[in-house]
Amino acid sequence: MKDLIWDNILSLREKKPLVHNITNYVVMNNTANALLAVGASPVMAHAHSEMEDMVKIASSVVINIGTLDEYWEESMRLAAHYALRYHKPWILDPVGAGATPFRDQIVQSLLKHKPKAIRGNASEILAVGKANSLATKGVDSTHASEDALEAAKWINEQVGSVVTISGARDIVIDRDRVAYISNGDPLMASVTGLGCTASALLGAFLPVVPNAFVASVSAMALLGVCGELAARKAEGPGTLQLLLLDKLHNLKEDEFKGLLNLEVYG
Amino acid sequence: MKDLIWDNILSLREKKPLVHNITNYVVMNNTANALLAVGASPVMAHAHSEMEDMVKIASSVVINIGTLDEYWEESMRLAAHYALRYHKPWILDPVGAGATPFRDQIVQSLLKHKPKAIRGNASEILAVGKANSLATKGVDSTHASEDALEAAKWINEQVGSVVTISGARDIVIDRDRVAYISNGDPLMASVTGLGCTASALLGAFLPVVPNAFVASVSAMALLGVCGELAARKAEGPGTLQLLLLDKLHNLKEDEFKGLLNLEVYG
Amino acid sequence: MKDLIWDNILSLREKKPLVHNITNYVVMNNTANALLAVGASPVMAHAHSEMEDMVKIASSVVINIGTLDEYWEESMRLAAHYALRYHKPWILDPVGAGATPFRDQIVQSLLKHKPKAIRGNASEILAVGKANSLATKGVDSTHASEDALEAAKWINEQVGSVVTISGARDIVIDRDRVAYISNGDPLMASVTGLGCTASALLGAFLPVVPNAFVASVSAMALLGVCGELAARKAEGPGTLQLLLLDKLHNLKEDEFKGLLNLEVYG
Repeated sequence: MKDLIWDNILSLREKKPLVHNITNYVVMNNTANALLAVGASPVMAHAHSEMEDMVKIASSVVINIGTLDEYWEESMRLAAHYALRYHKPWILDPVGAGATPFRDQIVQSLLKHKPKAIRGNASEILAVGKANSLATKGVDSTHASEDALEAAKWINEQVGSVVTISGARDIVIDRDRVAYISNGDPLMASVTGLGCTASALLGAFLPVVPNAFVASVSAMALLGVCGELAARKAEGPGTLQLLLLDKLHNLKEDEFKGLLNLEVYG
Repeated sequence: MKDLIWDNILSLREKKPLVHNITNYVVMNNTANALLAVGASPVMAHAHSEMEDMVKIASSVVINIGTLDEYWEESMRLAAHYALRYHKPWILDPVGAGATPFRDQIVQSLLKHKPKAIRGNASEILAVGKANSLATKGVDSTHASEDALEAAKWINEQVGSVVTISGARDIVIDRDRVAYISNGDPLMASVTGLGCTASALLGAFLPVVPNAFVASVSAMALLGVCGELAARKAEGPGTLQLLLLDKLHNLKEDEFKGLLNLEVYG
Repeated sequence: MKDLIWDNILSLREKKPLVHNITNYVVMNNTANALLAVGASPVMAHAHSEMEDMVKIASSVVINIGTLDEYWEESMRLAAHYALRYHKPWILDPVGAGATPFRDQIVQSLLKHKPKAIRGNASEILAVGKANSLATKGVDSTHASEDALEAAKWINEQVGSVVTISGARDIVIDRDRVAYISNGDPLMASVTGLGCTASALLGAFLPVVPNAFVASVSAMALLGVCGELAARKAEGPGTLQLLLLDKLHNLKEDEFKGLLNLEVYG
């Protein structure tokens, strides 16, 4: 599968999909830069008055509930609605699911619009899967990714989405396949929004790679390998953030294939 | 004109104008840092309740429609209105003009308040000039800057604004003069918001340099030269973003005059 | 007191408090990264519908009025109200106080909810203390920190808050003690939002260190020493911002104790 993923990375650089993000204030700059670095074209827009027009020209839509309020809740509902209508793949990042009933209710309502892919940490996927308020510590996961395996399978069965659980080991789940990606570096947890960046990269690969499972694995593999390479040179979380953007832009085939630690079952 | 521009850069560092930005969420941090780096003092404020007070104490106003909604649309209308009333130069950055009718209608409405300067990429200037919805690919230009020359001239005739078209070659247009600045680096297109940074720098120069054409050329020359110098040391778009801020802060006279590639006609 | 502060820094890294920020768009990314770098866990949330739930799970609340509007004003009022009710220490950062009547009225209204700590530059503390509109130049201070000493004492007497005045020399004031921290570097003034970062760090220390004066001194000492160390390696404000995050993460005991320049009276 390594060759296929590398081809997808090249294909992304060539096709430059337009990724429409409705995301949180904390990470907008990072995710826009990450999308540019891998060759995609980011647009951030949330006005109700232009939602249909923007979704129509986009290749995909990423909805991230990190810093929502009632206006943005409606922006997200509209975006998901139009994405489904105009057959644009859309990705849900349920940031902080389980932290408050407000978040859980919005997540459940967005699931009705059938996201093609969902990505969260284990705590968030557990909260989405159980459809009720778990004890989540803010936006940071207090669980290992493996703990959310059953919840992810349940979401896949109920909603049809390919589900990615981020963690020390990333897990991607489809109806009949599971992938484990063991790349990255612990220092990545000290940079805000790298999970959000992962979701943005899903938004870049989904319109380019027809199979949503392969697209999700490609995105997580690319981020994991680049994060691991960047961490080797970084002196801390500040420099890591920038070196990661450099590497997303400059990654070479042999670096990628030499480092990728991927297992696929099923 | 090189000596004049360098004097303007020194004058900016000395006078520290207060630049009031109503800009998009993606680039607020970058533009604030770029303004500080060149010696200006940034303020970001959008509440209707304080718009008149804030415009009154500002040296200039920058309005960037990147991530607008209905509340921010009114913030922008108020800011432009008060900028005109209190004789503060204001700059329009029509991000994503042509992408949706919502954006085009807001741009047309803002033009009534006579921006002193406008800056966009070729796609955006074409959209503003034609006053109708062109096929724009999100916020990235699909045209060379030269393609928008006629549109820029038309805007200048109708509205009176000095118009800057950003691109591989930046073009600045006034009623009887055209400047071409051939600096910068292709890697700059992989960093989000450097166009927005250019508009913010226009906001720094306009209150310091009486002639809006010279002010616009000074801003684009400064950013182009610093971007080119930063790109020489950068390993990718991540490090470029920071090295650019360093260089905006540290630029020396001989570096600037030695590298500036400027032609002025008329 | 050096040993006590270092113990507090270690204690913060171990206890990982959840800091709930209602802060401005410009600095959200920076403050989230600074909180992660020192070992805290940041959450940014402003929806009225989840304010009570979020404050309940947080260890502390930071309210920063940098880019407010009428919706966010109510978010801040709710957050301060619930912080007081649920006995969570909360910190007020009165960004731009004195610049507009809108800001001053909001600050006065927030003071009723008894912030445990307040941090601002001299202009802002003067504006809060005098409870009226001074001539403030945007969000940058035009005063030395010493100029606001009387205002800080007055605020402490009226509201009970420990007050920190940021400047070339940082001053922390309690009812019967004053601390002077003479670290940092002039280049820090060319990076946006380092004052906001200081307030976020107050939010990290206050739930970990029982005494609010010692907590405030610990936060300012940590930021000042790390900023000074980062500035030695930085080539400008761009690289300083990142090297500061690295150092907040990597700071060693001997670096800290060797450089800290602290005087405490009373």
